[in-house]
Amino acid sequence: MEELQLSTRNHGILLEAMRYAITPVGLHYLLTHFDIPPVDPLTWRLRVDGNVAETLSLSLDDLRAMPATTRVVTMECAGNGRAFLDPRPASQPWLLEAVGTGEWTGVELHHVLDLAGPRESTVEFVLTGADHGFDGGVQQAYQRSLTLEEAAATGVMLAYDLNGAPLPPQHGFPVRVVVPGWYGMSNVKWLTSITAVDEHFTGYQQAVSYRLRHHEHDVGEPIRRILPRSLMIPPGIPEFLSRSRVVPAGECRLVGRAWSGFAPIASVEVSDDGGATWAAAEHDHQQVDDASWIGWRFTWQATPGDHELCCRTTDAKGNTQPDRAQWNTGGYTNNAVQRVTVQVTES
Amino acid sequence: MEELQLSTRNHGILLEAMRYAITPVGLHYLLTHFDIPPVDPLTWRLRVDGNVAETLSLSLDDLRAMPATTRVVTMECAGNGRAFLDPRPASQPWLLEAVGTGEWTGVELHHVLDLAGPRESTVEFVLTGADHGFDGGVQQAYQRSLTLEEAAATGVMLAYDLNGAPLPPQHGFPVRVVVPGWYGMSNVKWLTSITAVDEHFTGYQQAVSYRLRHHEHDVGEPIRRILPRSLMIPPGIPEFLSRSRVVPAGECRLVGRAWSGFAPIASVEVSDDGGATWAAAEHDHQQVDDASWIGWRFTWQATPGDHELCCRTTDAKGNTQPDRAQWNTGGYTNNAVQRVTVQVTES
Repeated sequence: MEELQLSTRNHGILLEAMRYAITPVGLHYLLTHFDIPPVDPLTWRLRVDGNVAETLSLSLDDLRAMPATTRVVTMECAGNGRAFLDPRPASQPWLLEAVGTGEWTGVELHHVLDLAGPRESTVEFVLTGADHGFDGGVQQAYQRSLTLEEAAATGVMLAYDLNGAPLPPQHGFPVRVVVPGWYGMSNVKWLTSITAVDEHFTGYQQAVSYRLRHHEHDVGEPIRRILPRSLMIPPGIPEFLSRSRVVPAGECRLVGRAWSGFAPIASVEVSDDGGATWAAAEHDHQQVDDASWIGWRFTWQATPGDHELCCRTTDAKGNTQPDRAQWNTGGYTNNAVQRVTVQVTES
Repeated sequence: MEELQLSTRNHGILLEAMRYAITPVGLHYLLTHFDIPPVDPLTWRLRVDGNVAETLSLSLDDLRAMPATTRVVTMECAGNGRAFLDPRPASQPWLLEAVGTGEWTGVELHHVLDLAGPRESTVEFVLTGADHGFDGGVQQAYQRSLTLEEAAATGVMLAYDLNGAPLPPQHGFPVRVVVPGWYGMSNVKWLTSITAVDEHFTGYQQAVSYRLRHHEHDVGEPIRRILPRSLMIPPGIPEFLSRSRVVPAGECRLVGRAWSGFAPIASVEVSDDGGATWAAAEHDHQQVDDASWIGWRFTWQATPGDHELCCRTTDAKGNTQPDRAQWNTGGYTNNAVQRVTVQVTES
């Protein structure tokens, strides 16, 4: 029932919507930790405080008057692939769909930080959202931090527009954080404050959750950048209940997307025998943005019978996708290759 | 795994989004039977054929040039509430969230039918979508029919805009059917043709699925209009995993929505003891549209301890909500009262 409640609230992209280079609003994946908070854009202010020369209180108009930047960013939940782990960690039971690509417009974070003037002893900035609840037994507003260096990076922004329109409520209206190349947990929605602190932030979502732990007592490693993944649009037509696919024999165009938070995509490969043999797919060599997925395509000669189609990608730093999931306590960063079973029928 | 695949694809409204009278795109519930089909709006044509004086092929511009109508319509999936049935019929496992309210703009269906001139022997119109797959072992395009009388009703439209913008892909771009007051299955998305026929349509989604059957061999009754339902926005703050609620003691404002496809809402009641006793809530008496939900509100004196909050509505024809679910084979039209468990803490 817990998984059901979460999976009814939180939804993934419909894989066929990967046909759109920019994911239309409503098809982008969405994970809401607590409730979507009501925010009045007229009275909303972003407070910049803590270890700074000047405390700021910025309106939406103030932010919109600052230099604007637009980035096409592929966002993925760190828990994508969790439901394939065995045993399955109790949380949002994502299969493969927790991804989407948005055109985000906002002001780069460093512009705002420069206005406030962080003192030299500043180590991190704590980003606080208006959403509030309990997680892991701790009452909290949703909070994450970025180090000085991370916060100063090009592209890290306070976004107020998605796909050319003001953020919809569910994506953080009126302002959210976007950290290109990082898993979704860093992109604090419904931002209310940025606090400069002189020691590392130990809030729940930073120090307890979103860490890669191999066992319960493992202190683990923080989760940051998105591991490479490729996904295909399942070919043919689906069966309603099982989502199994039927494909007519003959030439079948396989298309999909690939991304990595570490480096450009170097290759995409496809298998039609469950990963026993692989063939190179054609892929885009121009990315619209360093942080955006690319398209790929492969012409498959579909022969009658059952096939397990797979795809995998490797980035320019040699990061690739494993055949099988690597278990961890939180069920994070499972980028194992996608497996799509299709039944090919005589055409 | 089947339920998981479906619930990851198909999503409900986040209940707190009932605060918006018109549901923002991306928060409206969405059930996609097969895959979202790609449609090129420039080459798309609506074919009107079969038992008509003149076969038509209408472009999107043709439809937009016809008299436009706008309706605020609350849509609900006939399977809403299914996951509370025991045993749970295998299908999309909705809890309570399969609802949303859109401002739909389009041309009333009768204008289009009048152009084609149905012959006197016409009994029904078959509406066919571009989405295609298998359901119940039958390969099919998604199809539903409306009788002459149903198709001629005021407000039954071919919609091309949602909330003032062209339909998003997931809601049936470029054109879908909207039948105000009916469950969602009648609102064929990605419409490609309307065919006048001289006998009752027996396609899968009309004659096999979407019927209320009490046992497997029951021929059942077709599902049409939306039974009354009220929902509250769960008060207080949530726990991430369990979605349980914590509310501080004292005055607590309960708000929600109520709707019926049969008649205006006559009353909304609230209980804080699991339905043992009820008190009248205040509700809107003006509906923006016959087919739209209304808002309601209730000031609750929250006392420390656990409470089961409930709400129920009754429409002007005396239709109301049962305390407990009525089982049926397809898991349809379960409009039993919502139960929200809250823990009230000393404030």
